[in-house]
Amino acid sequence: MANDTAFVGWMSRVQQDMEAALAGLLPDPAVAPQRLHEAMRYAVLEGGKRVRPLLVFAAGELVGASAANLARVAAAVELIHAYSLVHDDLPCMDDDVLRRGKPTCHVAYDEATALLVGDALQTLAFDLLATPLAGVDAAAQLAMVKTLAHASGHAGMAGGQAIDLASVGRELSLPELEFMHLLKTGALIRASVLLGALAGQPLSDAETERLDHFAKRIGLAFQVVDDVLDVEVDTATLGKTAGKDAANNKPTYVSLMGLAEAKQFARELRDDAFDALSGFGAGAERLKALADYIVARSF
Amino acid sequence: MANDTAFVGWMSRVQQDMEAALAGLLPDPAVAPQRLHEAMRYAVLEGGKRVRPLLVFAAGELVGASAANLARVAAAVELIHAYSLVHDDLPCMDDDVLRRGKPTCHVAYDEATALLVGDALQTLAFDLLATPLAGVDAAAQLAMVKTLAHASGHAGMAGGQAIDLASVGRELSLPELEFMHLLKTGALIRASVLLGALAGQPLSDAETERLDHFAKRIGLAFQVVDDVLDVEVDTATLGKTAGKDAANNKPTYVSLMGLAEAKQFARELRDDAFDALSGFGAGAERLKALADYIVARSF
Repeated sequence: MANDTAFVGWMSRVQQDMEAALAGLLPDPAVAPQRLHEAMRYAVLEGGKRVRPLLVFAAGELVGASAANLARVAAAVELIHAYSLVHDDLPCMDDDVLRRGKPTCHVAYDEATALLVGDALQTLAFDLLATPLAGVDAAAQLAMVKTLAHASGHAGMAGGQAIDLASVGRELSLPELEFMHLLKTGALIRASVLLGALAGQPLSDAETERLDHFAKRIGLAFQVVDDVLDVEVDTATLGKTAGKDAANNKPTYVSLMGLAEAKQFARELRDDAFDALSGFGAGAERLKALADYIVARSF
Repeated sequence: MANDTAFVGWMSRVQQDMEAALAGLLPDPAVAPQRLHEAMRYAVLEGGKRVRPLLVFAAGELVGASAANLARVAAAVELIHAYSLVHDDLPCMDDDVLRRGKPTCHVAYDEATALLVGDALQTLAFDLLATPLAGVDAAAQLAMVKTLAHASGHAGMAGGQAIDLASVGRELSLPELEFMHLLKTGALIRASVLLGALAGQPLSDAETERLDHFAKRIGLAFQVVDDVLDVEVDTATLGKTAGKDAANNKPTYVSLMGLAEAKQFARELRDDAFDALSGFGAGAERLKALADYIVARSF
């Protein structure tokens, strides 16, 4: 399904639309403070597969959300993701020099600027999400802000990062590893799906619950696949430093389960995610294709 | 007016209520990730004069906002302020070891934790502001999120910080200095007043405009007074490193205008701010007393 021409065309279209949307929403590099604005654009534009925006758009198809609204919502999620990468790469965290095939933000600029870039990208995400969206009522939009904040703060992405810090050089059990990833990567992947679904016709509680199950499984599968890629793919192909987890003595699904088992686990998660969408009919085809694409990266 | 017993009692009550509200809203240090949660509380609790929360509460009196709503809104503003202090104190920025009379967050914990503390405090601010407030409609609340985001991002606080970085060791003109402070400190002070006013009965456009003029003048006065205190008060009294601006060769109102002139400028800003409130009657007395208190710190 992931190799289907229509799917590949859709993916490429969304990626291009996102690039244009982000370029328009990020601050003008000709306006003061120029260096900050330029570095914010450097950290976000021309990079990444835009997996989270793709999930926002695919979930938006379930609920008939408009492309303009989805672009804004997807941009907010992508800015949160981009901010986390800039801060994670800083010397006091992962101290990395390569990201998306380019020097990391603090290498291309300087540490202080990279710190502010991350801070300001996070703020801009909430700024975008608080600007009224056509045809979406204010209460639903407030729920979007809440969903994004919850997914990225101490009980989500930032919390997962803190657990990751504390786990370097330590033995983690599989449940501990899963809890870390649930927060660190899973929460924002899950939020991407939920936010896309909030941008159109409301789902029933039962539908939201099934979609949420899908989103959680895909969030976990994404991390398992990331661990596989860190072992199997070289730095040039990955666009970021490969083999980093093993070098840092970080526990991963591969180190805990073995490579073949981790790949099998990713496939099982995808199948479980598919099952959760069975009641949605044709509207869910894009989400399924995307889930397949995310997992197939590791085959 | 600032020495009035009723005002002092009110100020102390709001400060105590804020401490309790913040303690209840910050994450539980017994829940994972414990170290992050503990460090978030360290960075926020038992510190500061809570000037921004006081402004939220005083502005809330103009519009009959409830104490519960004001506490949540004020907590959101204070968390943004606290995150900015944690990040500003980091080695790659001001490299400071003392804040609010205690070791700075990265000294008490470590740099990576302090980075995440700042990130997660910012997120929590938006999380709090996106939780529905009783009696406030969702559109007004979305406007609050927008106001706070705009004031703290690249066009506000973070942008001002970037200009500050770029200005070290450089000559700044008075208009350049004013632009920097308008963003760096002024924007969040101004937002505090506007957010308090959004938490109750809506003001007319003309009233909002006058209140906004007051807020802008007080925001600037606050920074002028801060520059005066940096010269006149010792480190123990200030609770943060004194004389830092001169040591870092940073331009200030005192270095550009002279000490007596900077104090006189602060008084003129206060008087102009008072004039803007003249049509509001008794409801504005608290805001006036607070403006007076802010400026009187430098006498």
